[in-house]
Amino acid sequence: MPFVKIEMTREGITREKKQQLIKGITDLFTNIFNKDPHLTHIAIQEIELDNWGYAGAQISVLREKGITADKK
Amino acid sequence: MPFVKIEMTREGITREKKQQLIKGITDLFTNIFNKDPHLTHIAIQEIELDNWGYAGAQISVLREKGITADKK
Amino acid sequence: MPFVKIEMTREGITREKKQQLIKGITDLFTNIFNKDPHLTHIAIQEIELDNWGYAGAQISVLREKGITADKK
Amino acid sequence: MPFVKIEMTREGITREKKQQLIKGITDLFTNIFNKDPHLTHIAIQEIELDNWGYAGAQISVLREKGITADKK
Amino acid sequence: MPFVKIEMTREGITREKKQQLIKGITDLFTNIFNKDPHLTHIAIQEIELDNWGYAGAQISVLREKGITADKK
Amino acid sequence: MPFVKIEMTREGITREKKQQLIKGITDLFTNIFNKDPHLTHIAIQEIELDNWGYAGAQISVLREKGITADKK
Repeated sequence: MPFVKIEMTREGITREKKQQLIKGITDLFTNIFNKDPHLTHIAIQEIELDNWGYAGAQISVLREKGITADKK
Repeated sequence: MPFVKIEMTREGITREKKQQLIKGITDLFTNIFNKDPHLTHIAIQEIELDNWGYAGAQISVLREKGITADKK
Repeated sequence: MPFVKIEMTREGITREKKQQLIKGITDLFTNIFNKDPHLTHIAIQEIELDNWGYAGAQISVLREKGITADKK
Repeated sequence: MPFVKIEMTREGITREKKQQLIKGITDLFTNIFNKDPHLTHIAIQEIELDNWGYAGAQISVLREKGITADKK
Repeated sequence: MPFVKIEMTREGITREKKQQLIKGITDLFTNIFNKDPHLTHIAIQEIELDNWGYAGAQISVLREKGITADKK
Repeated sequence: MPFVKIEMTREGITREKKQQLIKGITDLFTNIFNKDPHLTHIAIQEIELDNWGYAGAQISVLREKGITADKK
């Protein structure tokens, strides 16, 4: 407790970025809730672009049209 | 809101059928709940046949025996 | 197969609308994938407005500001 | 994309702490992956202590014995 | 690792039965995979009968018709 | 009802062990709750070692250091 499940599109996520995310989320639970980090488990699920739908369309189609998820 | 997670066995699901499913579910949320489609996310998780259990057996074993999930 | 998990904010969802959603999603799996409806399970999880975050804010705070999820 | 689902035991989590968590996780996705925060959704699921098992025991039983999840 | 999430209909599940289930599943992971039980977390999610769909219908409606999930 | 989702690290899990787990969990639901096994679905999700975080670190890093999940 807690278990954190992350679903995100599979788009070039490096091992280093995954480690940063895991460290960052674990620290949030320790800092906000004083949770023992040995009780914090996190799983990252990368989803193929054909398998994620947003606004009724596949992400793969949106990406082909040049629509990204980037912060402007 | 909403987020829809679909778990289904990996059995020849085409890109076109995934798109139909994504469009169909998104439309349901718009039609029934008046949800802005930009807030509807859908993720399809295809599960290997060895990894899905039904009635105590692996789907891969059921398929080898000729048992399908087809509507009769 | 399939199992569909729906996470949505708890905001006055009636029993009738849940039934429409369940029927609609089950029909999509039958029509698109020819799935036996006795193998389609759907669970709706209603999430309290304090417990859903969007763009870094709680939905309860967004609703207090008059920001809705309605389709315009 | 992403959708983050947090499962944690229901033990006096205040509205303010939930907001801190939501803000912190959203910022991680923006900072590490440059994700538009309008695409980051987070749902917190609080689980009753009778309904979480750890090391074969219910958390409610562990808490009655004085065993906590606190960082030492 | 592992994390086990159980979704089941809320129908008079006692604390004792939950404990039996938690103990039984944890033991399976230890016996089959030699997993340290301190790494096995289990969460039970009870779903309201209006919120579970099976074969296109709400479980609450099926129960009113006398259809149960009991093993014959 | 029930649907059981298992998330575990992908570390040499054989087809036979998956079958044992599926059979074991299905039997628990039948024995404890008298559930019809035709209503028990189980999905096993194997997570890459880079994608699971425990105590703030990737499992792949822990394994490189010789830290296992084995019961002592």
